[in-house]
Amino acid sequence: MRPPIASIALTAMIALPFSAQAQFAKVEDAVKYRQSALSVMGTHMGRVGAVVKGERPYDKAAVEADVAVIETMSKLPWSAFVPGSDLPNSKAKPAIWKEQDKFKAGAEKMQQEVAKLSTAAKSGDLNAVKSAFGGVGQACKACHDDYRNK
Amino acid sequence: MRPPIASIALTAMIALPFSAQAQFAKVEDAVKYRQSALSVMGTHMGRVGAVVKGERPYDKAAVEADVAVIETMSKLPWSAFVPGSDLPNSKAKPAIWKEQDKFKAGAEKMQQEVAKLSTAAKSGDLNAVKSAFGGVGQACKACHDDYRNK
Repeated sequence: MRPPIASIALTAMIALPFSAQAQFAKVEDAVKYRQSALSVMGTHMGRVGAVVKGERPYDKAAVEADVAVIETMSKLPWSAFVPGSDLPNSKAKPAIWKEQDKFKAGAEKMQQEVAKLSTAAKSGDLNAVKSAFGGVGQACKACHDDYRNK
Repeated sequence: MRPPIASIALTAMIALPFSAQAQFAKVEDAVKYRQSALSVMGTHMGRVGAVVKGERPYDKAAVEADVAVIETMSKLPWSAFVPGSDLPNSKAKPAIWKEQDKFKAGAEKMQQEVAKLSTAAKSGDLNAVKSAFGGVGQACKACHDDYRNK
């Protein structure tokens, strides 16, 4: 016995409550959203980076606050890479939609590295922050190299 | 006895560790940052708004997640309204820098309303979410009316 179509549709809706397509009225909105989230993330990465490079004094609370924003941001962009959203004002390469598994793995890797950075930031150990920051930077770069036009 | 100048300067640095001017290398960066943060906030406000308007079914966890992003975003833009950042690509009205106290009070009011929305979202009471969402919307609108060009 097959479940009726309506039941399948309902199951799909439950499995995908955050269906990306349903979240953005227009692909332009998806592009703007992911660019905005990644831009905010980049600003706070830059602030932690300045501490890591010694350009700014290490302030545990400030770094923790920056990393908390980075962590929130690190989860947001991915649902916004909806099919057909490689618009002219986007640097997203079409490879994103041809290599969905690899792209998703890269996004997850980045979030794992950010979680490590969060732990390091809470520890108050600048050397741990430096090390974990390097891991996040590498994860960012790996995807940018593969999936973002210059 | 007056404290020596160096001591005053140090006190000022401690009181203002997040000195806005020091956080952005260029005013353009400040504009992009605040626009990005407010744009991400707007997307998640729109999602909660769809639930409030009955266009999307109420899912407690989803609304809580949206409101958590809104709450993080609600704290970010204000340090980026640096003097001289009413650039052509910004809708910020010069009144922001002439009425700093009022502008700051509006930003704080919004964050207070967002805190109420967060409490409502955690309660799981849709009517409380609707009411608190209205408060946030009014706080957003008050500042947009006064300080944002159309």
